[in-house]
Formats: sequence, structure tokens, C-alpha cells
Amino acid sequence: MPNGKAVKPAVRAKDDSRRSAKWHERRNGIIDLSAKVFAKRGYHATSTVELCEANQLGKGALYYYIGSKEHLLAAIHDRVMDEVMMGADRVALAGGSPAEQLAMLGQELVAVIMRYPDHVWVFLHEFHALTGENAKQFRRRRRQYEGRIEAVFEAGTASGQFRALDPRVTARAWLGMHNYTYLWLKDKGRLSAKEVAALFAEIFVWGVADPASEMVPPLDGRPAQVAGAS
Amino acid sequence: MPNGKAVKPAVRAKDDSRRSAKWHERRNGIIDLSAKVFAKRGYHATSTVELCEANQLGKGALYYYIGSKEHLLAAIHDRVMDEVMMGADRVALAGGSPAEQLAMLGQELVAVIMRYPDHVWVFLHEFHALTGENAKQFRRRRRQYEGRIEAVFEAGTASGQFRALDPRVTARAWLGMHNYTYLWLKDKGRLSAKEVAALFAEIFVWGVADPASEMVPPLDGRPAQVAGAS
Repeated sequence: MPNGKAVKPAVRAKDDSRRSAKWHERRNGIIDLSAKVFAKRGYHATSTVELCEANQLGKGALYYYIGSKEHLLAAIHDRVMDEVMMGADRVALAGGSPAEQLAMLGQELVAVIMRYPDHVWVFLHEFHALTGENAKQFRRRRRQYEGRIEAVFEAGTASGQFRALDPRVTARAWLGMHNYTYLWLKDKGRLSAKEVAALFAEIFVWGVADPASEMVPPLDGRPAQVAGAS
Repeated sequence: MPNGKAVKPAVRAKDDSRRSAKWHERRNGIIDLSAKVFAKRGYHATSTVELCEANQLGKGALYYYIGSKEHLLAAIHDRVMDEVMMGADRVALAGGSPAEQLAMLGQELVAVIMRYPDHVWVFLHEFHALTGENAKQFRRRRRQYEGRIEAVFEAGTASGQFRALDPRVTARAWLGMHNYTYLWLKDKGRLSAKEVAALFAEIFVWGVADPASEMVPPLDGRPAQVAGAS
């Protein structure tokens, strides 16, 4: 960038690392509050004026922190994807069998859904409103995460722990089961996020396990076995 | 209704059975086309004027067939719920073991999602825009369907075929796995809707099966075993 005048948002984004901690903090606050507004009113139905009002900012200030309305939507998606990918990294670092990896990935994913209900709502409902480079980046990151899930199923099949099922469709079945919790899992529900994820892991790992494998999970005394808990 | 003047939409709806076949056909056409518009632009962002344009109707005619914009949204939800409940009725009528019931329910559900992609998109994204009586009826019908799925899990546990897992959370896991296909299952995809539903049934039935039961499904030669199909 030869000069500092009239820097476009796409270029500006690359420079975010040079902003102050305070700038980032304020920016994150705007993203979080705007996620709530989008979740409630819908992305297309929310005007920039409404976003300014909700954030108690002028148009210039909103632009200074975020850029356009679509940049805001992209930032909300990034916030979810950042958390989800960090969770996947933690799981990869922790190691363990494919069954254990799958259980941990489920715990991480449900935890993000619980922590960011508005962001996840916007993420799942408005991703198609992203255009051009934003849409491309979102698809790339989502595909990257799906690939991590598929890899666990492939590793499970390779080790003989899981049956040889289509890894792509199996991963999507797993994702659907977990993502859909955004519609019903509540902070103070009958079962905690951890308990729900444990039950899901039990169903799914059993669902793909090869009964001929010694690694089939044991039946009794598992924490997810919640018979009579209802 | 003592007289025909100024009949409110809520009252009018009860009289739909007296309408002609042609009226119903035109009404369904409007519902289907409007589902496409809502799916593309979002419910809140779509104006009545745009709905009139898309359907090539005046405001009066739109009212004559549908009532308000929210009635249209409710009608889209009803169309999905009608199909889903009819599928559940067919499965109940067909009989069979809980495992077979579950597999058939999955086939029926995925078939509806494939047949009505726009309606299902609107159904899953815009249900929170329903208000008052419309919201109440939608929640009642959705709960009714969830109850049918839960009942299959309860029957499976009672018969010893399934382990004793929380039926409500298990039903939601199953629903999530199937409903989520609206995001990725395509008419001319690598696997057909039937194949995907069969794979889901294999994963789920194995996932909840009691290994001590004689009714655990056999491993070999099942159509859903799609190893190497990718």
C-alpha cells in the first residue's frame, strides 16, 4: 500500500493486526451485538441505520470498525469458524482413538453452539447472503472443518474400529446431529451441553463401530447412558 | 357467520373446504411460488408488493387466496407438516419393528426435504416469524411429529431392541441428522435420497441397538453399506 488514503475494506482487513487492543475489543463488541440483531430481525431486513442505533455508533464509526454490513456478516461467520477450528485443533492435539476424537469434537462443537447462540443462528441462516470473496472464504473454511470430521471417520475405518461407511455422508450426518442443537439446547435445560454431546457420541460411535473390532465401546457405566434421567 | 361481509382471515380459513378445486389449485400454486421467493430473499425482506408481482396478482387477489403475508408463511409450514405427518401415518400403517419403523420414517422425511427444498428452507429458517395462533399451531404440530419419533425409540427400548437412552434427546439427534440434509442433499447428487436415508438408518439403528438383543441388524450385504461408492 503506497499511501494511506482511500484504503478499501478488503485491504484494510489485512491491517487489522496493527490496530490497538481497544480497537479489537470494541470491534468484537459490535460483532456480538450485531449478531443478536441479525438473529432477531434477519440480515436482509436489518438496515445499516438500525445497526448504528443498536451499537450507538455513527455510520462513519461503524465503517471504521467493520466496513460494510456484509463485512459484519462475514465477521460473525469468522467468529464461529475460529472457535470451531480452535476446538478441532485442541482435539487433534489431545490425540486418542477415532472414537475418542469424535466424542471430543462433539463436545467442542456443542460448546460453541451453546456459547454463541446468536452467532450460530446467523451462521446457519444467513451464510447464503455472503457474496464474492466472503462466500468463497466461508465455504473454504466450512469445507476444511468438514474435512477434519471426515478424516476421523476415515482413520476409524482404516484402524478397523469403524465400519467402511461413506465418510462424506457420515460426516454430514454427524454435523447435522450436532448443529441442529442450536434450535433446542438451552443453557439451563434438563441435560447439560456436555451430557447431550456425550449421548450423541455414544449413539454415533456405536452407530459406526465395527462389531468385530475389539475397540467397540463398552455398554455399561458410561456417563452418557441417561436412562431414567428424564 | 351470520353474514358474508368483512370476514376475517382466521374465520375464512375454516371455510376453505367449501372453495372450488380450481381455487385450491391456484392457492397451492401461490404457496409454492412464494416459498421460492421467501427462500431466496427471506420472509421479512419480502414485501407484499413483491409477492404480488411474483405471483402476477393484485393485492386483493392475493388476499382472496391467502389472506396476509403471515398466512402465506403459515401455509408454507402447513404444506411441509402435512407431508411429514402423512409420511409418519404411512409408516405407522406399514407396521414392523422399531428399527424398521425408524428406517421408513427417515426415508419419508428425506423424501419431503427433497421434494420441497424451498418450503423446507423457509420452514427451518422462518418459523420464528410466525406469531400468535400460527406460532402455536406450528409448535403443536412439530411437537406431535417429534412425539411420533420418540414413541419409536420408546417402543424399541421396551422391546429390548434398543438400549435405554433418553428418548427426547435421541429423537432430536435423529431429527437433526435428517433435517440437516436440506443444506446439501441435491436431486442429482452422488447418492440418492434413498441411499442417504438408508445409510442414516444403518448408523442410527446400530447406534441405539442393544447388542444383547437378537434384533441387532446384520452387518453384511446391507444396501446402505456404501464403502467404495465414493
